[in-house]
Amino acid sequence: MNTGELTELGQQLRVDSVRAAAAAGSGHPTSSMSAADLMAVLFAHHFRYDFARPDHPANDRFVLSKGHASPLMYATYKAVGAIDDEELLTFRKSGSRLEGHPTPRQLPWIETATGSLGQGLPVGVGIALAGKRLEHAEYRVWVLCGDSELAEGSVWEAAEHAAYEHLDNLTVIVDVNRLGQRGPTRHGHDLDAYARRFQAFGWHTVEVDGHDVDAVDRAYGEADSTKGQPTAILARTLKGKGVAAVQDREGLHGKPLPEAEEAVAELGGPRDLHVRVRQPSAAGSPPARAAGHLELPRWDKGEEVATRNAFGEALAALGTARGDVVALDGEVGDSTRAEFFAKAHPERYVECYIAEQQMVATAVGVAARGWTPYASTFAAFLTRAHDFVRMASISGSGLALVGSHAGVAIGQDGPSQMGLEDLAMMRSVHGSTVLYPCDANQTARLVAAMADLDGIRYLRTSRGESPVLYGPDEDFPVGGSKVLRSSDHDRFTLVAAGVTVPEALAAADALEGEGIAVRVIDLYSVKPVDRETLRAAAEETGCLVTVEDHRPEGGLGDAVLDAFADGRPVPRLVRLAVRNMPGSASPDEQLHAAGIDAESIAAAGRLLVGEAIVS
Amino acid sequence: MNTGELTELGQQLRVDSVRAAAAAGSGHPTSSMSAADLMAVLFAHHFRYDFARPDHPANDRFVLSKGHASPLMYATYKAVGAIDDEELLTFRKSGSRLEGHPTPRQLPWIETATGSLGQGLPVGVGIALAGKRLEHAEYRVWVLCGDSELAEGSVWEAAEHAAYEHLDNLTVIVDVNRLGQRGPTRHGHDLDAYARRFQAFGWHTVEVDGHDVDAVDRAYGEADSTKGQPTAILARTLKGKGVAAVQDREGLHGKPLPEAEEAVAELGGPRDLHVRVRQPSAAGSPPARAAGHLELPRWDKGEEVATRNAFGEALAALGTARGDVVALDGEVGDSTRAEFFAKAHPERYVECYIAEQQMVATAVGVAARGWTPYASTFAAFLTRAHDFVRMASISGSGLALVGSHAGVAIGQDGPSQMGLEDLAMMRSVHGSTVLYPCDANQTARLVAAMADLDGIRYLRTSRGESPVLYGPDEDFPVGGSKVLRSSDHDRFTLVAAGVTVPEALAAADALEGEGIAVRVIDLYSVKPVDRETLRAAAEETGCLVTVEDHRPEGGLGDAVLDAFADGRPVPRLVRLAVRNMPGSASPDEQLHAAGIDAESIAAAGRLLVGEAIVS
Repeated sequence: MNTGELTELGQQLRVDSVRAAAAAGSGHPTSSMSAADLMAVLFAHHFRYDFARPDHPANDRFVLSKGHASPLMYATYKAVGAIDDEELLTFRKSGSRLEGHPTPRQLPWIETATGSLGQGLPVGVGIALAGKRLEHAEYRVWVLCGDSELAEGSVWEAAEHAAYEHLDNLTVIVDVNRLGQRGPTRHGHDLDAYARRFQAFGWHTVEVDGHDVDAVDRAYGEADSTKGQPTAILARTLKGKGVAAVQDREGLHGKPLPEAEEAVAELGGPRDLHVRVRQPSAAGSPPARAAGHLELPRWDKGEEVATRNAFGEALAALGTARGDVVALDGEVGDSTRAEFFAKAHPERYVECYIAEQQMVATAVGVAARGWTPYASTFAAFLTRAHDFVRMASISGSGLALVGSHAGVAIGQDGPSQMGLEDLAMMRSVHGSTVLYPCDANQTARLVAAMADLDGIRYLRTSRGESPVLYGPDEDFPVGGSKVLRSSDHDRFTLVAAGVTVPEALAAADALEGEGIAVRVIDLYSVKPVDRETLRAAAEETGCLVTVEDHRPEGGLGDAVLDAFADGRPVPRLVRLAVRNMPGSASPDEQLHAAGIDAESIAAAGRLLVGEAIVS
Repeated sequence: MNTGELTELGQQLRVDSVRAAAAAGSGHPTSSMSAADLMAVLFAHHFRYDFARPDHPANDRFVLSKGHASPLMYATYKAVGAIDDEELLTFRKSGSRLEGHPTPRQLPWIETATGSLGQGLPVGVGIALAGKRLEHAEYRVWVLCGDSELAEGSVWEAAEHAAYEHLDNLTVIVDVNRLGQRGPTRHGHDLDAYARRFQAFGWHTVEVDGHDVDAVDRAYGEADSTKGQPTAILARTLKGKGVAAVQDREGLHGKPLPEAEEAVAELGGPRDLHVRVRQPSAAGSPPARAAGHLELPRWDKGEEVATRNAFGEALAALGTARGDVVALDGEVGDSTRAEFFAKAHPERYVECYIAEQQMVATAVGVAARGWTPYASTFAAFLTRAHDFVRMASISGSGLALVGSHAGVAIGQDGPSQMGLEDLAMMRSVHGSTVLYPCDANQTARLVAAMADLDGIRYLRTSRGESPVLYGPDEDFPVGGSKVLRSSDHDRFTLVAAGVTVPEALAAADALEGEGIAVRVIDLYSVKPVDRETLRAAAEETGCLVTVEDHRPEGGLGDAVLDAFADGRPVPRLVRLAVRNMPGSASPDEQLHAAGIDAESIAAAGRLLVGEAIVS
């Protein structure tokens, strides 16, 4: 396309953005209009993609980090022939594929859900990393960001990561329209301010008038030919460009244009330009990912092994059996034991340093390319990436997340290092699986099982050693549990997981010595829970006592209720959990202070069978 | 102190760090040793503080962002006479004030809990902002960071915020010892790499040999005299400095020295130097914070008002009555309605732009200085700051957090913008209060009540308009609820909050028309819950049906169980919550698709009284 055609295409994208938002009665046309020329030039001249074959391994990848500019994305899909005008006007309506913020659920050309700002570039870094380091593929990754979202620290985690990994297949285009939602951004149209920051982080930068299609074209070419570092294109644009009533004006974020028909006329009216997108450069084939026989590590009953160690060993074994497994670390691989994988498979180990948001975003990116990522850090620090996990679930992303150093059982390091809210966080994620093993063989089996699940899968590991309770050939289906003690005269049921399993068993031993029979369930699958076993325990023993190294809210105690939330009779419930604010102390002292060690459990049990109410 | 004395003091801090970790059998002596000279010079020559009066308004403030170097902090406290040697050796023991990572719970000289890296500088920015902008005070804020933690994006949110606010009362000292936990950092001893980044964000920088006490002294002086911008001191240091067996060596992070006695001898043996810390520069008085009569906004029953609007108006009124209230925004104040406060009290409104971690950290910082912060953004985006909220609860920080745009009820914008996990997140925070009002008058009362609570207080608001159900003089005690419908022949109880309250009332109307009497409870206080009312409803109606615009995990459905977790009989339970993944649709369509609108509630009720099991 020549200059005039590109300019016309930009106007068409504006017109269609305005029309889509007008039809919806909501949406972000002004944020679309600023970036319309940037998109026109990208899709007409540079982006290589087979829209008939979105899974083509050599396709370039595009991420709309400023997800609210979805009208522009959909207008572009219309211009390239992927959707028609009728569908464009279903924008934001119930049942439409064209959601308010893009998601890949129904649109195969979307790489990742966006709409929480500052996440598109981090995920783009993950995709580019997969292309460059894992696949050695030719594709390029293009990310369109807003200027406001550069205030998010996650953008700078991404900038650091991309430059460190020399991702010259990555280009970020920043639509510097100077206006955020509430008003002007910190830096307005000061392109240098943004360029200085990207340069300091090791990027090549280009500053450009984002409405000069030839200049934009040259900038993309410069990005294409820059080697050894990623490129940031800082484009000066005007929000609402092309319609005087809204152009460069405050207070118009996220609103359809007041006079849409007049605006369309001012933009020169509807057009029907069609863009022939460049085809991917190579035939391309999906990367070969050798798969072999899985030989999980095995431990004998009675050995003392930390579940974090079992995780590390199992992950390394899984990596040997499956070429699609990638491990990501937040600079604590020696503690989480992800380092065992690093030693065995350094080419599939990604050190993300202390940047948990970027770690999860990288996982989302490599998962989007078909890899199976396991991202691990301390359970406590996964809270740092909560919003990324939330958005990953909207993407339908397949991630294995592993949090170590769970609970007060870590001991002396104190509360800042203790995962005490992680089960609540992970259970509330849509479609998630939450696993909490108590011994080494169980851990190894669950680590392997995670690889074949959908959605967000979370495994919680512990720092200290614990006895191996199960043989290496025992099965642990997701959604199952293990009844470790049972009789036909159990007075109540202890429901435990992880470090509280041995404590519950010891408490049951003590109570049995006093003539009080107690059932013990190892609820290693916290979500989904084993409804049948819990319901049987409720019917047969009348009372469930949950014991967890976690806050009382959102963890094991709440999870057992999933078995009784349908209106059926509920058993009596007692919840033992961490209600204090721990300080520093030994692991045993911590469990005791929290009231979740064997002695505390036994004491609660005695009160219970004495018919006293435990408070 | 002269050069020799400062050097000796540095050695003493090393010796005491080694001794403390040796006595504990754990801890981070090598990370303490790298920064010992930096601390020696700071506390001997520059830091102004009255240790007998930690609340002195003119005291400088120090934040140990690399919280694992706590032995160094405590060794410094010994050197200044705040603790004695006997207490130093209680480090990390049960009951000791000297925890593995510093917290302010028992040590009045600590400003904020640290140990989750990348949080100290953000909180320091908040304290410096309070000093400069709210208090116009003379004190300086000094933050000691590790180099590894500069990978956290939160550090760059802080860097951006500090430079934008011209916080020349803030100095960050980066202990560039080149070694993280697992191995070398990305940039090793490349001080320029860090300096370039800080400069690009608008900071003054100084590069220095962190073991040359005179050079460090000059660097601090330069920071002191730099006007208009914050200063970053990049100090080249060696981890484990002074002990050949550990100095600058990998694999020794977080471990006591193998031969502590020999190490102490190599460092020249114990010393007993005492530092006279400079006194604060002025007598200083706490800032005057005028308090007047609170005139909350009032609405008439039947008006249609969005609770987010009521929040904004009530907060503005609260700000008029109380001079200690500060509002913080994540660049969405026009949506959350925090902007109403901005218009009334611009001097106490802090725009944090799209940087939720920094928004919460700023709140922690200003709260540490005695202010009462209200930080608000979309409920969904508060997940971005989860780790900061978690750490704030360890600090015992008093924060009001407000999340708007809760649930599927926002409509067309889609799931990325919907707070659907926020109740789970906030309930699991230790000592938190969680409020979810359904009408304008209730919102206003609860906004005011939040100011006087302890710990983390969370209020959830809604985007759309809803009917005013309560008169303006109604009381809404925290921990209470409202029984909106009740009879002596109720077949079950609907427990609702926020947007589901009008839906529950409409469902109850419909069912009443069919001869089915239903109790309705407005559970506006989600944590703590009103145990008495829930228990009475359970006894009298036998079944609780919770209805919430939130994921089934961790929200209202789990909250009601708090009333029955002590072993007492539990009622039958049915949980209506958002189990689907929403797309774009109108608010009404969204509520219906999620099965939480009046029609769905009534349908569930019919099944229930028909004795059918609802699945």
